[in-house]
Amino acid sequence: MKPSEPFGLGLFSKMTAPLLSGVDAARHLELLRTARPLVHCLTNEVVQEITANVLLAAGASPAMVVAEEEAGFFAGIAGGVLINIGTPYPSRLRAMHASADAARAAGRPWVLDPVAAGGIPWRDGIIREFVEKQPTVIRGNASEILALAGEKSGGKGVDSTDSSDAAVEGAMRLAGSSGSIVVVTGETDYVTDGVRTLRVTGGDPMATLVVGTGCSLSALVAAFCAVSDDRLTASATACALAKKAAEAARRRSEGPGSFHNAYLDGLHLIKPADFTSAE
Amino acid sequence: MKPSEPFGLGLFSKMTAPLLSGVDAARHLELLRTARPLVHCLTNEVVQEITANVLLAAGASPAMVVAEEEAGFFAGIAGGVLINIGTPYPSRLRAMHASADAARAAGRPWVLDPVAAGGIPWRDGIIREFVEKQPTVIRGNASEILALAGEKSGGKGVDSTDSSDAAVEGAMRLAGSSGSIVVVTGETDYVTDGVRTLRVTGGDPMATLVVGTGCSLSALVAAFCAVSDDRLTASATACALAKKAAEAARRRSEGPGSFHNAYLDGLHLIKPADFTSAE
Amino acid sequence: MKPSEPFGLGLFSKMTAPLLSGVDAARHLELLRTARPLVHCLTNEVVQEITANVLLAAGASPAMVVAEEEAGFFAGIAGGVLINIGTPYPSRLRAMHASADAARAAGRPWVLDPVAAGGIPWRDGIIREFVEKQPTVIRGNASEILALAGEKSGGKGVDSTDSSDAAVEGAMRLAGSSGSIVVVTGETDYVTDGVRTLRVTGGDPMATLVVGTGCSLSALVAAFCAVSDDRLTASATACALAKKAAEAARRRSEGPGSFHNAYLDGLHLIKPADFTSAE
Repeated sequence: MKPSEPFGLGLFSKMTAPLLSGVDAARHLELLRTARPLVHCLTNEVVQEITANVLLAAGASPAMVVAEEEAGFFAGIAGGVLINIGTPYPSRLRAMHASADAARAAGRPWVLDPVAAGGIPWRDGIIREFVEKQPTVIRGNASEILALAGEKSGGKGVDSTDSSDAAVEGAMRLAGSSGSIVVVTGETDYVTDGVRTLRVTGGDPMATLVVGTGCSLSALVAAFCAVSDDRLTASATACALAKKAAEAARRRSEGPGSFHNAYLDGLHLIKPADFTSAE
Repeated sequence: MKPSEPFGLGLFSKMTAPLLSGVDAARHLELLRTARPLVHCLTNEVVQEITANVLLAAGASPAMVVAEEEAGFFAGIAGGVLINIGTPYPSRLRAMHASADAARAAGRPWVLDPVAAGGIPWRDGIIREFVEKQPTVIRGNASEILALAGEKSGGKGVDSTDSSDAAVEGAMRLAGSSGSIVVVTGETDYVTDGVRTLRVTGGDPMATLVVGTGCSLSALVAAFCAVSDDRLTASATACALAKKAAEAARRRSEGPGSFHNAYLDGLHLIKPADFTSAE
Repeated sequence: MKPSEPFGLGLFSKMTAPLLSGVDAARHLELLRTARPLVHCLTNEVVQEITANVLLAAGASPAMVVAEEEAGFFAGIAGGVLINIGTPYPSRLRAMHASADAARAAGRPWVLDPVAAGGIPWRDGIIREFVEKQPTVIRGNASEILALAGEKSGGKGVDSTDSSDAAVEGAMRLAGSSGSIVVVTGETDYVTDGVRTLRVTGGDPMATLVVGTGCSLSALVAAFCAVSDDRLTASATACALAKKAAEAARRRSEGPGSFHNAYLDGLHLIKPADFTSAE
């Protein structure tokens, strides 16, 4: 079914998926700030610094332990694990598999970020192997989620060419088939387990001009999932925090450079009460 | 011949090489903003984030696909390819060769950035292999271009110890022998195919205190070459955009930290008309 | 002995270790700015950009030459070498050993940053091998230094869970047993050769929310040691410059994003006289 069809499941989800409640978001941010969870990040070469800085600013503790000799051990210690397939190569993939396996064995949440899914056959095979290990959460842009749901063949490199509204249905189907929570981000973010779907609005398009805002959001999802068993709400709170920080950043920046810093400031300055006062 | 000799070819070039015209620069920036080309970057470990952010801010779409298993495939899809030899090692070099070969086979422009050429024998051998593949453009600082032209043995690590004025002749000779357009950047930038030479003035020395401003300029050259077959003008427009953004950044910064962000803001905010109104 | 015991060596050191003198700091910053030493950095994947930018802002010249085929050669050319064990893996470790060996052979200073020491058995073995090569300086946070001194088993991932005051004794013992100068950083920084100990106060806790401020301080230590044989004072000056830049940054920032840039601005803007006028 195409997103433009008027009465399908897609439209239904878009219209009726409830917004994340401010009270729930506030409670989850409080949990994060109290626990300061250790998040083990195996991410791509381009975004390691912003990913660490986003976690630190939001109130978590990042660690990048990347060698296959120690990644699995460390994943067993961490509160949550991020696996981002942005720049995969064989030795790093072995470390990622060791970490995903250790997180599963320890009952810890792990998040898969399937960067550029649908664009390159070799990479799609890699991503499929991780999806089959049933990540706690899969977080991607619309083109990536649609590709994983079997609906189309990828965006423009790492950038989405589809709107998140068009990917809600695919996200729900992917959640159902994979057993993972699926987060599809864009102008509106949707978080679904295949049955329940939460919607998060807000944000600012300038975020798409700063590399790593999406990748580091996946790390934030891992951080929030480390402090709450309600992982649908935890994942949606990560999205809401990112969107609120982007809005604050836009008000205080003139371009993507100043936006980047103001975004980090925003993640740090936003307080739990900011989610309830906004309602 | 030494750059201080008064009547040589070097002086002639410096004095008579025409400035890039504002109309040409405006037209090329318009082309970039319309096409938003996908630029495949195989660059060094240090500057991946700024390289992606520079491309995004300027209006292109970056992608770093680095594994030898997928780099060649992806280079065939991209509008342009960057090969930066800042932190080479064997597996990455195989990915770089696959990408350069794929770009050549697909008739797409690729840019070589020969970081620290002339400084380390092992690296010089690597760079020579890429030069022999006839890059569309070679972009370096004066010490690097002089080393490739066979005139001296390198700068201070990755920093130039020579002025670009002193390297014009060497750049012209290198362009003639390699078949590549050569861009030598510094206080003044020169872009030459060995016959025609364009000059770009402006900029700000603070840019040399931010790592990756040179490396990311090579990515911008690839982006502009992806949208125009007039690659002399395309390369010079990349230089002009970088210099104009540096000037804007200097007016709004106090040191290299604030300069970095203001530079990205500048790349984003500069419009085609800014090149013609300045004339 | 525990740091809370009132009459031990720890308290003695904390109370009586002299502050780095402003005159000494000013002289060493002058030396750095004049010589602009080339610092060869083999550091972790996450902090390469900020490490280069910190060196450039402070007045040194960074170079990351990471392949085992060229790292040793380059270490022989550089004024100082940094070995940071944040994201070790076999091929990079070979490059690090080659660089450490070349620095020793050439009589050049090299600094070891034992990231997350005490946290992962495989990594601890790696760090031990470097400690046995007698680095000129070992720079770590309190948890790392305590782990190397055999007193406890590590912090929270890469973050310290101990105060630097609690690690003075351990640092002195480690300096005595290793033959290295030991720098333990935190709210107060201590620099010790096992006999003499210097104290550096100031700074701002916001620095702990920006990834790489500690790692890049180790690079600054290498830079200052490259320009002075009084390496106790040189190392302490690196700490003092970082603390002063952090104070300046705090006054001009609202969160970790703006702090990051203001910190780099501060490193660039601080002049030798600022150390003497402050006394």
